[in-house]
Amino acid sequence: MSAEAPDRPVLRLKPKANARAIRRGAPWIYDNELVMDRRSKAIAPGSIARLEDHERQPLGTVAVNPGSRIVARMLDPDPEARIDRAWLAARLERALALRARLYPTPFYRLVHAEADGLPGVVIDRFGDHAVIQPNAAWAEARLEALTEALVQVTGVTCVLKNAGGRGRALDGLDDTDAVLHGTAPDAPIPVEMNGATYMADLTGGQKTGLFYDQRENHAFAARLASEARVLDVFSHVGGFGLAALAGGAASVTCVDGSQPALELAEAGARAMGGAERFTTRQGDAFDQLQALAGEEARFELVICDPPAFAPAKPALDKGLRAYERVARLAAPLASEGGVLVLCSCSHAADLSAFTGACLRGIGRAGRRAQLLHTGFAGPDHPLLPQLAESGYLKALVFRL
Amino acid sequence: MSAEAPDRPVLRLKPKANARAIRRGAPWIYDNELVMDRRSKAIAPGSIARLEDHERQPLGTVAVNPGSRIVARMLDPDPEARIDRAWLAARLERALALRARLYPTPFYRLVHAEADGLPGVVIDRFGDHAVIQPNAAWAEARLEALTEALVQVTGVTCVLKNAGGRGRALDGLDDTDAVLHGTAPDAPIPVEMNGATYMADLTGGQKTGLFYDQRENHAFAARLASEARVLDVFSHVGGFGLAALAGGAASVTCVDGSQPALELAEAGARAMGGAERFTTRQGDAFDQLQALAGEEARFELVICDPPAFAPAKPALDKGLRAYERVARLAAPLASEGGVLVLCSCSHAADLSAFTGACLRGIGRAGRRAQLLHTGFAGPDHPLLPQLAESGYLKALVFRL
Repeated sequence: MSAEAPDRPVLRLKPKANARAIRRGAPWIYDNELVMDRRSKAIAPGSIARLEDHERQPLGTVAVNPGSRIVARMLDPDPEARIDRAWLAARLERALALRARLYPTPFYRLVHAEADGLPGVVIDRFGDHAVIQPNAAWAEARLEALTEALVQVTGVTCVLKNAGGRGRALDGLDDTDAVLHGTAPDAPIPVEMNGATYMADLTGGQKTGLFYDQRENHAFAARLASEARVLDVFSHVGGFGLAALAGGAASVTCVDGSQPALELAEAGARAMGGAERFTTRQGDAFDQLQALAGEEARFELVICDPPAFAPAKPALDKGLRAYERVARLAAPLASEGGVLVLCSCSHAADLSAFTGACLRGIGRAGRRAQLLHTGFAGPDHPLLPQLAESGYLKALVFRL
Repeated sequence: MSAEAPDRPVLRLKPKANARAIRRGAPWIYDNELVMDRRSKAIAPGSIARLEDHERQPLGTVAVNPGSRIVARMLDPDPEARIDRAWLAARLERALALRARLYPTPFYRLVHAEADGLPGVVIDRFGDHAVIQPNAAWAEARLEALTEALVQVTGVTCVLKNAGGRGRALDGLDDTDAVLHGTAPDAPIPVEMNGATYMADLTGGQKTGLFYDQRENHAFAARLASEARVLDVFSHVGGFGLAALAGGAASVTCVDGSQPALELAEAGARAMGGAERFTTRQGDAFDQLQALAGEEARFELVICDPPAFAPAKPALDKGLRAYERVARLAAPLASEGGVLVLCSCSHAADLSAFTGACLRGIGRAGRRAQLLHTGFAGPDHPLLPQLAESGYLKALVFRL
């Protein structure tokens, strides 16, 4: 590896590109900012290159993918940085130091891509198990070194590769999962969060997994759950519902389209000794919301955490109408003075647009609302402030 | 009071006014939306009136101040609502129900004005004591009934009037504090929050009081305080600093311009048995930040929670420069991997503008940042979603 730096290809900014923003930490360099001559275009995806400004002053070490709109992603401001196991280990050490400060037990998102200095790389930790999503060619090419560094830094005994990320196809990568280190678990892993027990199925046929990003919002909702009847729509494996159960809910109803996800939620409720306060309804969430309205069901706490209705700009209008519809159908199920939690994980719907959609839906249901709380993804999902795109998750807590 | 409704004056919307927004919950009606004839202008400030649209359809019961830009504030969608002790008690009951659900002990903002259906009225509760800020003429005129309702609903034994609100002069009200019920406390009241003990001086010469709005952000910062050296600049009575002390900080240094505020912080640290880990520095915060840099002081956690540098639009540019300067002077005091919490309570600086100012300051200090957390005021400070103005408090938690 010692010879890597001198031989590495060079990418050069056009004069009009914003070199100052890159020096200040902007992590992505687009094709229209770069001199894309024949040599640049021939760089193999996943290669490491040296980035220079138009006056040939070095800006840093980048990972290159000439086939993407984001041709270069900043890895290190040092233009001679060697991207080897030691470099990867240093990044992981820094990421781990933050999580160890934040959480009493090793269950968290360990690496959140660009914001943790590892562009395109996501690593979730479940105690002794870790799941890597190497959603960029540079990381895929260094998966062995990354796995070794991860084992060295964290001591995990099992490392899995999840190749389901949407970004992988853009970088020309396969969609084959793998066991990178150790032995894959043969049963769901119990995960304790906010006093609840979740079942994380890392390798089952459905690969439901578990998302850590809503942890702080689960905790907030659970504070309002004591003695409440709780409805968790789009519950997945019971994120909000089981936290509410731990918070002392009188009853919890989880609604989801996935029977395997609901079975994991039920297993969590049993593990918590709360099965008798816990029920599930499998089916389309919109249908179930309407059915519950027909039954004149009422809840002191209603949560709707749907999938991304507006993942990208072209889907924005349609997505906002879907969020409005969720709010309109869910609001009537909240009791007078009850709490309605509405979430969006859509990149394209910003906080203001999402709030507007929720308020229109609540208004059309004939209800009025106080806004008690606005929450985002937890601190194990840090943001690079230069990337507005990274703030995808919004949770609004209304009292009706 | 039974004859109030029939005799009440009428205010009428102009045809161009947005009656639909008012029906949906918009709480303020501006002078340019109303037919301001001689009769309307003659309505005494603080009067109750009936609001009608331009076709004389009723919209609700409003409180009137013809001398303000906001001529009418919605009290009740019922145009015949009697604004008496029972009405006030019902609003207080609803506000209390939320806080009782959220907090284990009766220390919180009980009423947050418009969002709790009591325009211009703020009530903070400190156990058996309550402090009312009646920042609107309609409430000042009903202070006796409001006090009676408050005692009836909450059982507090002492009610104080704080006439320091900036809104009072606009409504032509005096600035005289008073004891409205019971006996004023003769010593600061200990308040437990996030495991820390704060001293709330409700009646002392300095009337430092205590602010509840940062409670959730104090809690977040305290999670990062374990074994850390902590610097709390613009500390007031020790909001962040004492929470960090409770969170296991190795040392806490509070900086503030007010010696009485620092003395209350010290009293809190003593009450917590943490005085030996606690120091204060009295003086101008900017001077102190520069002095600490000169001493090459370093902290794992630095918090700056300054007063509103941009309370209103004309002060926005100057205010943003002040926030940038705070960030630039504070960032060098954070250790490598350390955490910097920057707060704004400026209405005029929205989240995006404030974040930009912070990033410029951090960048000019030669540091880069991850954004771990964005926090707002706690849920005892609910927002009326129709009033963007009500979301004044922002706390950004960066890791450098």
